[in-house]
Amino acid sequence: MIKVVLLGLGNVGVHLAEAFINSRQIDLVQIYSRTNRPGSSSIESIPLTNKIEELELADVYVIAITDDAISEFSEQLKFKNGLVVHTSGNVPLNALKCNANKGVLYPLQTFTKKQDIDFKNIPIVFEVEKQGDLQVLEKLSKSISDHTFNLNGDQRKYLHIAAVFANNFSNYMYNLAYDICEENGVSFDLLKPLIMETALKVQTVSPKDAQTGPAVRNDKKVIENHLQLLNKKQKEIYTLVTNSIIDSFK
Amino acid sequence: MIKVVLLGLGNVGVHLAEAFINSRQIDLVQIYSRTNRPGSSSIESIPLTNKIEELELADVYVIAITDDAISEFSEQLKFKNGLVVHTSGNVPLNALKCNANKGVLYPLQTFTKKQDIDFKNIPIVFEVEKQGDLQVLEKLSKSISDHTFNLNGDQRKYLHIAAVFANNFSNYMYNLAYDICEENGVSFDLLKPLIMETALKVQTVSPKDAQTGPAVRNDKKVIENHLQLLNKKQKEIYTLVTNSIIDSFK
Repeated sequence: MIKVVLLGLGNVGVHLAEAFINSRQIDLVQIYSRTNRPGSSSIESIPLTNKIEELELADVYVIAITDDAISEFSEQLKFKNGLVVHTSGNVPLNALKCNANKGVLYPLQTFTKKQDIDFKNIPIVFEVEKQGDLQVLEKLSKSISDHTFNLNGDQRKYLHIAAVFANNFSNYMYNLAYDICEENGVSFDLLKPLIMETALKVQTVSPKDAQTGPAVRNDKKVIENHLQLLNKKQKEIYTLVTNSIIDSFK
Repeated sequence: MIKVVLLGLGNVGVHLAEAFINSRQIDLVQIYSRTNRPGSSSIESIPLTNKIEELELADVYVIAITDDAISEFSEQLKFKNGLVVHTSGNVPLNALKCNANKGVLYPLQTFTKKQDIDFKNIPIVFEVEKQGDLQVLEKLSKSISDHTFNLNGDQRKYLHIAAVFANNFSNYMYNLAYDICEENGVSFDLLKPLIMETALKVQTVSPKDAQTGPAVRNDKKVIENHLQLLNKKQKEIYTLVTNSIIDSFK
């Protein structure tokens, strides 16, 4: 059993807590949280503290707090044994300022507290500073996910940017579509199957091969029609993305 | 039974043919195609012609050809009985230049010939010029899809633009993510569950409520970090979309 202390009970923390509790290879010995814990009976069974000096001994300390707070928070961890990891896609390993060994355990997913998630399907990216820690972090990763990847810090950073495009920006495209529907009395429900199909397609086909639409056909007539119907902001994004598609596929 | 003649056997035509054949309320009496039909045993059982003057009598003639060809093609249809519909999201109803009554039957989906699709889940948008034709086209739509919507031409036009954002542009965001992964030796597989989750979320939550990421948090530090790592083209899109998100959510 890998003894784990979890530090933080935000969105990521709550999901990690449940994944740790559900894993037979992990003994979640303690949770550190400054605020009250959210009500989940399984999480309530784990000893809680809000004092750094009361942290239990563990093999791995998993920090699941906001990016900006990681560095300062880790300075308070004075112990030298065990492995301290943060869970951010965007923060370098050496942002950790603790005395113990350092690592990263980054679950690549958008978490919403209320939504149940099967952690087994979430890719976990892990990184260690010292090769001697690789085994324990790999074992920890594999005990909660079926998809684990040992990437270096640069790769993780680029992966995080790629995730911004694949998740945040694609969701923003849904936002723009939503507004266009709303403004014209059309239900967004009409687009839902198309959105699912678009995401489903790239599970098996490369996004390049899946690209359709007026831009990839360089259909200037349709593009011109569309531009005339959009407001300034929509037009700006439509133009840039369309030109970029035309440029990529020519 | 609604007697249907299908004109065109491209991507949309092939899927429509199969949906018509599978519907008990539709009698697909004939297919018109200038080229050879693609091999599907059910489609091969339907009489085929490549001569306009040999078209059979039918209640509805469904034109499934490329947008640009619809107008000119429809001019060749000299008969006055029945209802002629095209299947485009972007072409106005009155682009049809036939003598018979006019309508639109637009299935909102990206079709790939090879991929099997359950037509029942595809939203169908329909429109008629004359109210008297509403019933037959509604019945036809409902016989192949569980999601049918009677929209006017303007609404359909805007829906088509919304679909460009929701489908083509979100897929292009996957493209950009794919390239960033490739350039850095990271498998695109890592992003696949995130992409599915992003699409799944907006099936029940509005895209506005589902928006996450550095832009919606206006996290200038992360945004600045990301921009430094991107090439010119990636940076341009990242900047515009990020600013647009910041602007929308402030």
